[in-house]
Amino acid sequence: AVATVDLNRAARCGFPEVIFGPGKTPEAINEIAGRLLAHDQNVLATRIDPANATMILEKFPAARYNKIARTLRIDASSRNSEVGNVAVITAGTSDLPVAEEARETLDWMGVRATMVHDVGVAGPHRLPERLAEFAETDAIVVVAGMEGALPSVVGGYVRCPVFAVPTSVGYGANLGGLSALLSMLNSCASNVAVVNIDAGFKAGYLAGLVATRRDY
Amino acid sequence: AVATVDLNRAARCGFPEVIFGPGKTPEAINEIAGRLLAHDQNVLATRIDPANATMILEKFPAARYNKIARTLRIDASSRNSEVGNVAVITAGTSDLPVAEEARETLDWMGVRATMVHDVGVAGPHRLPERLAEFAETDAIVVVAGMEGALPSVVGGYVRCPVFAVPTSVGYGANLGGLSALLSMLNSCASNVAVVNIDAGFKAGYLAGLVATRRDY
Amino acid sequence: AVATVDLNRAARCGFPEVIFGPGKTPEAINEIAGRLLAHDQNVLATRIDPANATMILEKFPAARYNKIARTLRIDASSRNSEVGNVAVITAGTSDLPVAEEARETLDWMGVRATMVHDVGVAGPHRLPERLAEFAETDAIVVVAGMEGALPSVVGGYVRCPVFAVPTSVGYGANLGGLSALLSMLNSCASNVAVVNIDAGFKAGYLAGLVATRRDY
Amino acid sequence: AVATVDLNRAARCGFPEVIFGPGKTPEAINEIAGRLLAHDQNVLATRIDPANATMILEKFPAARYNKIARTLRIDASSRNSEVGNVAVITAGTSDLPVAEEARETLDWMGVRATMVHDVGVAGPHRLPERLAEFAETDAIVVVAGMEGALPSVVGGYVRCPVFAVPTSVGYGANLGGLSALLSMLNSCASNVAVVNIDAGFKAGYLAGLVATRRDY
Amino acid sequence: AVATVDLNRAARCGFPEVIFGPGKTPEAINEIAGRLLAHDQNVLATRIDPANATMILEKFPAARYNKIARTLRIDASSRNSEVGNVAVITAGTSDLPVAEEARETLDWMGVRATMVHDVGVAGPHRLPERLAEFAETDAIVVVAGMEGALPSVVGGYVRCPVFAVPTSVGYGANLGGLSALLSMLNSCASNVAVVNIDAGFKAGYLAGLVATRRDY
Amino acid sequence: AVATVDLNRAARCGFPEVIFGPGKTPEAINEIAGRLLAHDQNVLATRIDPANATMILEKFPAARYNKIARTLRIDASSRNSEVGNVAVITAGTSDLPVAEEARETLDWMGVRATMVHDVGVAGPHRLPERLAEFAETDAIVVVAGMEGALPSVVGGYVRCPVFAVPTSVGYGANLGGLSALLSMLNSCASNVAVVNIDAGFKAGYLAGLVATRRDY
Amino acid sequence: AVATVDLNRAARCGFPEVIFGPGKTPEAINEIAGRLLAHDQNVLATRIDPANATMILEKFPAARYNKIARTLRIDASSRNSEVGNVAVITAGTSDLPVAEEARETLDWMGVRATMVHDVGVAGPHRLPERLAEFAETDAIVVVAGMEGALPSVVGGYVRCPVFAVPTSVGYGANLGGLSALLSMLNSCASNVAVVNIDAGFKAGYLAGLVATRRDY
Amino acid sequence: AVATVDLNRAARCGFPEVIFGPGKTPEAINEIAGRLLAHDQNVLATRIDPANATMILEKFPAARYNKIARTLRIDASSRNSEVGNVAVITAGTSDLPVAEEARETLDWMGVRATMVHDVGVAGPHRLPERLAEFAETDAIVVVAGMEGALPSVVGGYVRCPVFAVPTSVGYGANLGGLSALLSMLNSCASNVAVVNIDAGFKAGYLAGLVATRRDY
Ligand SMILES: Nc1ncnc2c1ncn2[C@@H]1O[C@H](COP(=O)(O)O)[C@@H](O)[C@H]1O
Ligand SMILES: Nc1ncnc2c1ncn2[C@@H]1O[C@H](COP(=O)(O)O)[C@@H](O)[C@H]1O
Ligand SMILES: Nc1ncnc2c1ncn2[C@@H]1O[C@H](COP(=O)(O)O)[C@@H](O)[C@H]1O
Ligand SMILES: Nc1ncnc2c1ncn2[C@@H]1O[C@H](COP(=O)(O)O)[C@@H](O)[C@H]1O
Ligand SMILES: [Mg+2]
Ligand SMILES: [Mg+2]
Ligand SMILES: [Mg+2]
Ligand SMILES: [Mg+2]
Ligand SMILES: [Mg+2]
Ligand SMILES: [Mg+2]
Ligand SMILES: [Mg+2]
Ligand SMILES: [Mg+2]
Repeated sequence: AVATVDLNRAARCGFPEVIFGPGKTPEAINEIAGRLLAHDQNVLATRIDPANATMILEKFPAARYNKIARTLRIDASSRNSEVGNVAVITAGTSDLPVAEEARETLDWMGVRATMVHDVGVAGPHRLPERLAEFAETDAIVVVAGMEGALPSVVGGYVRCPVFAVPTSVGYGANLGGLSALLSMLNSCASNVAVVNIDAGFKAGYLAGLVATRRDY
Repeated sequence: AVATVDLNRAARCGFPEVIFGPGKTPEAINEIAGRLLAHDQNVLATRIDPANATMILEKFPAARYNKIARTLRIDASSRNSEVGNVAVITAGTSDLPVAEEARETLDWMGVRATMVHDVGVAGPHRLPERLAEFAETDAIVVVAGMEGALPSVVGGYVRCPVFAVPTSVGYGANLGGLSALLSMLNSCASNVAVVNIDAGFKAGYLAGLVATRRDY
Repeated sequence: AVATVDLNRAARCGFPEVIFGPGKTPEAINEIAGRLLAHDQNVLATRIDPANATMILEKFPAARYNKIARTLRIDASSRNSEVGNVAVITAGTSDLPVAEEARETLDWMGVRATMVHDVGVAGPHRLPERLAEFAETDAIVVVAGMEGALPSVVGGYVRCPVFAVPTSVGYGANLGGLSALLSMLNSCASNVAVVNIDAGFKAGYLAGLVATRRDY
Repeated sequence: AVATVDLNRAARCGFPEVIFGPGKTPEAINEIAGRLLAHDQNVLATRIDPANATMILEKFPAARYNKIARTLRIDASSRNSEVGNVAVITAGTSDLPVAEEARETLDWMGVRATMVHDVGVAGPHRLPERLAEFAETDAIVVVAGMEGALPSVVGGYVRCPVFAVPTSVGYGANLGGLSALLSMLNSCASNVAVVNIDAGFKAGYLAGLVATRRDY
Repeated sequence: AVATVDLNRAARCGFPEVIFGPGKTPEAINEIAGRLLAHDQNVLATRIDPANATMILEKFPAARYNKIARTLRIDASSRNSEVGNVAVITAGTSDLPVAEEARETLDWMGVRATMVHDVGVAGPHRLPERLAEFAETDAIVVVAGMEGALPSVVGGYVRCPVFAVPTSVGYGANLGGLSALLSMLNSCASNVAVVNIDAGFKAGYLAGLVATRRDY
Repeated sequence: AVATVDLNRAARCGFPEVIFGPGKTPEAINEIAGRLLAHDQNVLATRIDPANATMILEKFPAARYNKIARTLRIDASSRNSEVGNVAVITAGTSDLPVAEEARETLDWMGVRATMVHDVGVAGPHRLPERLAEFAETDAIVVVAGMEGALPSVVGGYVRCPVFAVPTSVGYGANLGGLSALLSMLNSCASNVAVVNIDAGFKAGYLAGLVATRRDY
Repeated sequence: AVATVDLNRAARCGFPEVIFGPGKTPEAINEIAGRLLAHDQNVLATRIDPANATMILEKFPAARYNKIARTLRIDASSRNSEVGNVAVITAGTSDLPVAEEARETLDWMGVRATMVHDVGVAGPHRLPERLAEFAETDAIVVVAGMEGALPSVVGGYVRCPVFAVPTSVGYGANLGGLSALLSMLNSCASNVAVVNIDAGFKAGYLAGLVATRRDY
Repeated sequence: AVATVDLNRAARCGFPEVIFGPGKTPEAINEIAGRLLAHDQNVLATRIDPANATMILEKFPAARYNKIARTLRIDASSRNSEVGNVAVITAGTSDLPVAEEARETLDWMGVRATMVHDVGVAGPHRLPERLAEFAETDAIVVVAGMEGALPSVVGGYVRCPVFAVPTSVGYGANLGGLSALLSMLNSCASNVAVVNIDAGFKAGYLAGLVATRRDY
């Protein structure tokens, strides 16, 4: 077998293994999804392109594909009510797909998400106007490309952890997102942690972990 | 004045402004520390070299300098009892200074820290033997240089957020810590967030934020 | 002539010249392959795309194309029985093509290969469970993308050389495989040697050289 | 002769050649300064270390050395009254030396400079509180290290050009200032132009050019 | 809503928000454009590909698409007469698209632009022959790829600010424009400021800001 | 006009301006070629893709397109007999297109070229066997990808300048040719000069300049 | 305790843990060495600077410090006779320290080493003249800086694995050894594996593993 | 022996082996120099620091040390009269040491050198004023740091090969000379070849090879 599915992950880490789409055939994804469902684990697959999504939907008609986030979900059982409170904030409209991946992840974890879009630093009055929407959150995901300045500013206003996601939005010296990544790593705000470029899933997952901890 | 001390930081973000030592004269540090203390805020200064520490200790004899962590602390008021539970894990003995900076930060936040040292992947049996020491923590700080593999492995065993700190330990293709940094950003474990190279302070602060959230 | 085929390679180095596909027309590959076969040398060609493979198969109907590995083989003579024992281990399912290239190379060298798939560090219990499958090998090939942590862990369990192959699997800060490459170069395990990104052929060849040495 | 002093620079470009200190002996600097003074041009030399400054002061007792900015000035003639209005803003106290180099350059050009220090984004309320100090300027110099976010925010509040100077302040993934440099180049504010890392001279000069244009 | 249009930008910064095309659907662009027009602000959108342009033109038949510059403009009101004087200079013919983006931006700002094409340093007599065309300008935009040497030479001839735009023209060690970018940042001419690779819009905007300042 | 053709180049530099194809429309190329021919200068255009070549051939039926080198030539006058003697040596068959660009350039300059193909260092006996073919040359062009080792070895055998051309042949850590480029720049052979990645034109031109000097 | 010595390493991997010197106090090294000796394991410590060596020699007078290799050895028991046969080859005299580290490692493993010095490619006749010295070896270590070409050439002559060590010898574009590292990773010889820059220990260890395998 | 001196180099390549100083003890340098002199070959050693120079001068009192170039020369026999004609041009005064290394190399080869200093592009009228000094040379060495623009401009005026030497002069984004190196590699002048950063020796040697060819 080319896959050794980690069926024990949910028990060990709190949530099941998530399927990373790139480099896997739809058959392989179907097989892994089938095994997870057979063990009563809700499926989340990321970075699924539309062609593969179609083939997976044929096998699992109950699957839901989010074509902006490029995520695919299949529930093994009816879902729990939502807990916690996470805000997902974008710097610009072009950061939307990455923010959607974070939102889908939070939803799969059963965590409430509030979206605040397009409040980047070039219009610096926009963020403070919307402070109320994210002042009481357990954790915040901030998604930004280009200079990646927004997480530092958000960090300066709040008392919860900020999970910063650099995006590849931009051109030239953005170096495919490296510029935003470096910005966020060098943030002068103490409460900013960083994940990989375009890794909406990772930031959503980490924020979700923080938001669900109070339940233990 | 060359400094605009952010005295409102504690109210806004939960903890006071922390002094970044490099590029500041001891006089400047003394002035900022004095202002924080005058507002009843506990002082933490990082990356203080021994010569500057000596000069600051002259002004503030109650200050405590940790020469491994290169941190300096001055308390404004008697300290609270400890809350929460964070583990700080190192891959090798050479990662100790960065781990100590994280530990000092947690201590300044009033958070309990458990140290687990030198359990890197070249001796892969060492980590599982000590799982009990960090299984129940609120958050974990993992400090590793060279290939920076340890956070992924720790992440695979636990259900709390892992804050990974790449260190500059190593030589040649370690690129001053960039190799470990990239490793951690690309972690296949879902629960690993990353901070800057050698940024023990940041990881400690983030872990401390998570550990203190249950108190709200 | 645009090629100076190194027909003496087998005598000098133990195995014939291997054809590197990119940048060569199918005619050129056919010509080189023809010359090798005329000198009774088994042909291995790597990185052959499907269109070129079709044209080569027309000329050499006995050729075998592995479409996952993108290798092409044509035997000059009947093959020897297998010697030695090499394990090829992957971190994730997406590393399969590179592992297949290594396996084809070992097969061409007449070396036995054992495949162990999808045992990366995010599910850290998987590798130790399968130790028996690679404990007695002459050499091990470890194939991993993203943070490239697996070779260090494998190295920590075994007494033979580990040939680590970084793959381009991942995104963003994986930098097309550079992240995994750097990880492997900085391995704290003493027995890890490294080859180029996605270079399954190289790692297979080196492991095969070690595995066949006992025959001298 | 090892120098070909560009005595025509003032006529052609508006201001005389400025002496770049590194790699020049104090004798060479003295010679160039002497030639400029002989042609009635005010001398500005940058990046002069203290040892060289001492030797130059011996020859030109009227020279003034700014040991924070590491600039050296010698006036050929009495100075004009000041024109224009430029603000120099720093993100943190450690950016002071670079800001001072800009201030000295503006002073040498006869341009008024207003200094606004330590208003970086981690304390995001500080900048808007001081808007009045730089709302009416001809041009603004913004000096920031680490994530280099401040120029974008300043740019979002003003209608004049912003000349952003990345500094090498920070550590690890700041890459000696490259992180801040990339941030500024990718600024989503339209009015941000960038100069080299730590190039306070350049930003000051450009701002000074804009501030003195209304006099033509 | 996925967009928070900054309708206050014109009041605060002198010119309205400009639409960055990449990653936005034509519907999103139409919506933002509609809001700007409703507030009587002239629309400039950059990096619009032809397919999207067609869809936007269907909604706004008065829009004008420049297919070399890939800009799209829609006027809310009749345009003012032109003020100021900016030169846009290219090193080679291949730099034309970036120069056109700068020209469109200047036109949208109501600033006069003079184009001087293909006067790069390999034919060093060409630039001085055309000095008269840009000697009296308020600011100059210099567009160059490959070694990016032209801005320094232009800077050596003039007394106004030079806004240098590195382009991605070239191959191999041009690193997609990084080579030209680094050249320009290291310019030994004092009056050269730099913007992102291929950022004709930014350089045009900055030059336009300088050219329109005399009107205050 | 978008082009300022440097018609004086031949007089100043010995050979006419060469047309760099990328980013130019076929109309622009036709216009520049026409102007060169009208001034009796032989046309060489590089990096012309097949589609553009077809459109140029329609206008200039006497043009010759080399589809491997992607060069296009149009002679203004009958050609001179050949002078000098340059060798063009490749490491592998995949380096052929770059070598062909060098050969076309030499031919356009009227210089004799000897081609020696596929003698890279993995078969180290091949080069010394063919020493006689390049022992008496005026200059040598060595074209190599991957590790780019060949120029150093050639340099160790000869007394003339070696112009090394790194190619983008390879994968992974070849970084699109940067690996070979760095190798050549660090050559321990004293007589190795380097040009841009894949710049067969440049190396051919430089070798041609050396080979034609004896004629002055 | 700050160290978790891996006393089981010899049993698991064939040889004991090796002490990595940098970042460890002499006290820490003494403690680890003491524990290894107490378990009858021969001590090898690498990258020990002279000052630390002196302090360790005070505690362990039987220790031997190699000041060129900067290694330190302390034997727990009398040593075995030597087995196997490894050649260590340098490109230039400046590569000596790294070669010595490899030789010390092999000696600690009980493996015979043959040294062949200063046979780099700029004098290409030198290597073939000495082929007899390394034709029958089990494995070869090749140490080279600058362009790092030697491993490929050695690889072209032999049938055993070549472990290539890039060194930081050189300047400028050698990028502290990255140039040689990239060369070796891109070697067109099939039998070249690579270790970190200046990692004589690693290459020696790997060659020693191969050389001692025939004993099983 | 740790050195295998290439005594045949002069016969094979026209000039003897040159001693690369870094990483060699004075004893090693003395030994190599002694062997070269014993074979009647003139010694040139580069990158010799003053302390080593003193020790070498004790052994060879006739040696001459150039403390700016850091070269050391010892003649085996009386020197020939000079041939050929090479110009060495610098952009700024700080490039002097590298230019001196080139001049010493040319002198050692018996080639006449003309020095033209400090004619960089910020004062663009300086170079054309001095064209007569280098119009008739066999080859030109151009030495420049910062943006490295000068070689392209020189190349645009002349008909001989230009050997460009990037220097590490500058700061910040000069990346230790990489910026100038990249500029030169991307030169749009056809006649510019490049050597390593600060490699005055290499450029001098190559120019000397061209200048001495007419003697064959
Ligand atoms: N020079 C060296 N280069 C790379 N790894 C080394 C070196 N010396 C020792 N090591 C490895 O470093 C590990 C010890 O790391 P630490 O726990 O930090 O002392 C051991 O497992 C060795 O295999
Ligand atoms: N393949 C090439 N590589 C580098 N430079 C080239 C190439 N082909 C032409 N050139 C140069 O590009 C210049 C023309 O640039 P442009 O004005 O953009 O057409 C000429 O001066 C040539 O010297
Ligand atoms: N400054 C220098 N830059 C580059 N190569 C040099 C330099 N000086 C000497 N060399 C070369 O280095 C080689 C000697 O290397 P090694 O055997 O390490 O002494 C000689 O063949 C010279 O061609
Ligand atoms: N701190 C600085 N940063 C960048 N350029 C400078 C600086 N100081 C002086 N310059 C420029 O450097 C040039 C002098 O270079 P040089 O001929 O090497 O002395 C002058 O034209 C100045 O414009
Ligand atoms: Mg927006
Ligand atoms: Mg240890
Ligand atoms: Mg898996
Ligand atoms: Mg501050
Ligand atoms: Mg042109
Ligand atoms: Mg071949
Ligand atoms: Mg030597
Ligand atoms: Mg000068």
